[in-house]
Amino acid sequence: MKVNGYATQTATDKLTPFSFERRTPRPDDVVIDILYCGVCHSDIHTARNEWGGTMYPCVPGHEIVGRVSQVGDNVSQHKAGDMVGVGCLVDSCRTCSACNEGLEQYCEKGWTGTYNGVDKIGGTEFKQTLGGYSNFITVDQRYVLRLPENLNPAAAAPLLCAGITAYSPLKHWKVGQGQKVGIIGLGGLGHMGIKFAHAMGAMVVMITTSPDKGKDAQRLGADEILISKDKSAMKAAMSSFDFLFNTIPVGHDTEPYMKLLKRDSTMVLVGSVEPLTKVNGVDFIFQRRNMAGSLIGGLPETQEMLDFCSEHAIECDIELIDIKDINTAYDRTVSGDVKYRFVIDMATL
Amino acid sequence: MKVNGYATQTATDKLTPFSFERRTPRPDDVVIDILYCGVCHSDIHTARNEWGGTMYPCVPGHEIVGRVSQVGDNVSQHKAGDMVGVGCLVDSCRTCSACNEGLEQYCEKGWTGTYNGVDKIGGTEFKQTLGGYSNFITVDQRYVLRLPENLNPAAAAPLLCAGITAYSPLKHWKVGQGQKVGIIGLGGLGHMGIKFAHAMGAMVVMITTSPDKGKDAQRLGADEILISKDKSAMKAAMSSFDFLFNTIPVGHDTEPYMKLLKRDSTMVLVGSVEPLTKVNGVDFIFQRRNMAGSLIGGLPETQEMLDFCSEHAIECDIELIDIKDINTAYDRTVSGDVKYRFVIDMATL
Repeated sequence: MKVNGYATQTATDKLTPFSFERRTPRPDDVVIDILYCGVCHSDIHTARNEWGGTMYPCVPGHEIVGRVSQVGDNVSQHKAGDMVGVGCLVDSCRTCSACNEGLEQYCEKGWTGTYNGVDKIGGTEFKQTLGGYSNFITVDQRYVLRLPENLNPAAAAPLLCAGITAYSPLKHWKVGQGQKVGIIGLGGLGHMGIKFAHAMGAMVVMITTSPDKGKDAQRLGADEILISKDKSAMKAAMSSFDFLFNTIPVGHDTEPYMKLLKRDSTMVLVGSVEPLTKVNGVDFIFQRRNMAGSLIGGLPETQEMLDFCSEHAIECDIELIDIKDINTAYDRTVSGDVKYRFVIDMATL
Repeated sequence: MKVNGYATQTATDKLTPFSFERRTPRPDDVVIDILYCGVCHSDIHTARNEWGGTMYPCVPGHEIVGRVSQVGDNVSQHKAGDMVGVGCLVDSCRTCSACNEGLEQYCEKGWTGTYNGVDKIGGTEFKQTLGGYSNFITVDQRYVLRLPENLNPAAAAPLLCAGITAYSPLKHWKVGQGQKVGIIGLGGLGHMGIKFAHAMGAMVVMITTSPDKGKDAQRLGADEILISKDKSAMKAAMSSFDFLFNTIPVGHDTEPYMKLLKRDSTMVLVGSVEPLTKVNGVDFIFQRRNMAGSLIGGLPETQEMLDFCSEHAIECDIELIDIKDINTAYDRTVSGDVKYRFVIDMATL
């Protein structure tokens, strides 16, 4: 089955049209005609080998929305014509305690990424999986989500990564009414953090270096803005937050943020997959504060998140692009010039 | 009421005999004849102004055991002749949510240390409180603990700081049967961590740089030893711990330890009240791991800990000294040459 997509052949090449084969569908497989695919910053890190380990050719894309064209004999949860989504992972060991709890993102044997994952199912000439910048994809039914019909499919695509990355920690740490929640950084993840925390009933504070982001944060659901460069405002907010969702994508000084937490409260990192430039034990010890991390979400929780979005009319703020503009979109994403996620209209392929 | 004690007059002086006055007992006060006082590393940091802010003269000592000699009219919980203890704090605001929950160590207005605290009660010529290296102390009844009669009072003294600092996080994070718990560092805190985690039913692993500490750790209750310099042993132990109690007293690279934690598990810092030299976000994000801090314990939990020690026959391993040897004891504590806590026999004053 011949697939058309966009790939990069080296860390410095641009993305260009690329044709390849996907595996012959197995009894548990769902074949999906891809309608939209979000552009995640991870796509860029991987395409450019910024995290190391990229296998080429690389077809990025793990915020996939499409319609089922075909299902295998064992597939019970999806049928041809269904609107579905595929997120960051397409396989995992299915037997470890994490998989058994529906936390496939913490699979003890390592899950298979939707792209640049080590393909354990095989059936193609590639060692690696190839992602959603393509016209169709074949995925085991366990890793396919139902997309509620009332969601705009283009604006729902980034829910599969940015959405679940925000939703999962807010749920896990029980964000809700009566709480003051800080969202640190206003990008793809931060804008979803605001929407979810607001919908869960929390008082939401946008914490940002840029005063000009304040107005947009309020439109998205933030109740207040805290400028992190304003030392007196930061001092006044000390020990006042019940939870912090930290989307800063690079190593940074965590001290000013940790001090914002109340006793026994938690700051969760979702972006800094690298050394933090400053962490001071004293901030943890004196108010029994916590720092944690969180990675996307498992399949059951991702489905729960999509259903929550359906119920609360939550979508991503997106800019729809033609696939020929993907390289420009990468450059604009890197410079922070997107509100808040590019989504590729796959009809333009 | 004239008190005899030992004080240092500057950051570089030795401790020498010093006489001073304590306040006239108030209706809520308990006057305690001090029998024993533990020597905590904090005493040294403060006497030598290593954390800054030391007010002189400085009389250290916050691991105090003694017998009540006199009580005020309002005192209902203690009477003359009772064996009691006083730990790190002798006052707090008593009205904030932390104080109301019995977590006085996290008092939102700041608690008063047993020494070098800003004395809000007053009644002496000193701005600061003066501690337990002295023959008696006057303390508000709320901050006085009952010492179970079956405990050796000398060996119980360090329970008031080292003991509760270990007990509180183990209880808060629900350490118990079926868990694998790591104790990082074998000093005053670490040796109590082993005893408590063992008594709570956990499988206890001593994590240390020094193989020669292994035998003693096993005597104290450790089931296994993990040498942190042994890279292959550390790798084999990755993601296997339910809880880590980290007593390292200085900034350090947390990465090798964080990797030992299972998904959703926590490492608690109790010693590093300073910047950590390395913390990597990736260790938090990929297994939803947590890092937290913990500070001594509140009064109700300290009482609970003393009762737990009574029930499980837990005491500190101590070396009893004459007060004239306090300066040598300080030097030996700094060089790690103590198993595991010096306690001053106040009869030698």
